[in-house]
Amino acid sequence: MSIPSANIRAYLAGFLDGDGSIYVQLKPNSTYRYGFQIAPYIVFFQSSKDKPLFEKLCSLVGFGYIRERKDGILEYIIGKNDNIKEFLFWVSPFLVLKKRQAELMINILNAKESVDSRQDFKNLIKLIDTFRELNYSKKRKIRTLTP
Amino acid sequence: MSIPSANIRAYLAGFLDGDGSIYVQLKPNSTYRYGFQIAPYIVFFQSSKDKPLFEKLCSLVGFGYIRERKDGILEYIIGKNDNIKEFLFWVSPFLVLKKRQAELMINILNAKESVDSRQDFKNLIKLIDTFRELNYSKKRKIRTLTP
Repeated sequence: MSIPSANIRAYLAGFLDGDGSIYVQLKPNSTYRYGFQIAPYIVFFQSSKDKPLFEKLCSLVGFGYIRERKDGILEYIIGKNDNIKEFLFWVSPFLVLKKRQAELMINILNAKESVDSRQDFKNLIKLIDTFRELNYSKKRKIRTLTP
Repeated sequence: MSIPSANIRAYLAGFLDGDGSIYVQLKPNSTYRYGFQIAPYIVFFQSSKDKPLFEKLCSLVGFGYIRERKDGILEYIIGKNDNIKEFLFWVSPFLVLKKRQAELMINILNAKESVDSRQDFKNLIKLIDTFRELNYSKKRKIRTLTP
């Protein structure tokens, strides 16, 4: 797909800074090699009363999908690694508030793709914890890897 | 002051669409000619833990001011008529979600400046009610003008 114009990328950067969320979930899941699934997301939120305009906005991106929560909030979700990287590559130069989150997310996605050992995975989890601190300023959890 | 670059204006449009609020208060005030003060605002919101970056963002605009609420939320407020018009003039071409609010606010500010009679003021209040419906989908209030 083609890259949106600089103005559209700048607009999307502003929208991400204002309304969006960049985060990564670490879900315990015994079917994964080290006992955890790593699920990164970029999400935008909007009241469902603005659905047509929100769909228009999301179509500027060209990937991801919209889901409607039971509480009437629309979520626009970008969840595929490649799409997240592409999107952050577009908007990073224009970000003000979430520049560090964007950079760290790119590092996490790169590290995720090249995990080759238990130590690599441990390092990746450290990166993810750094990220979560940036988002929530919370204390780290102690996690036990399997096997 | 100089106009920010197109990319910055597009970024600010995205931020306004994502995080900002355009609204107008109609405050009963007997010292005003028709018994009401009309107070228009553009406001951005942010947690105070991001203060330095939020200040950087706000400095892209070049007017308005930041205040810190007791609950730890920062508000960046543009409240002067001329500044609101200038800001909306910059961002309007790039807005997606709040385009109608922006246009209507400009109409309200123009009407406000040219009020010359009680009927003008009544029309202005109708415009303001239209605006409030756009924002909140609430029922109109019945208001009594003075004198």
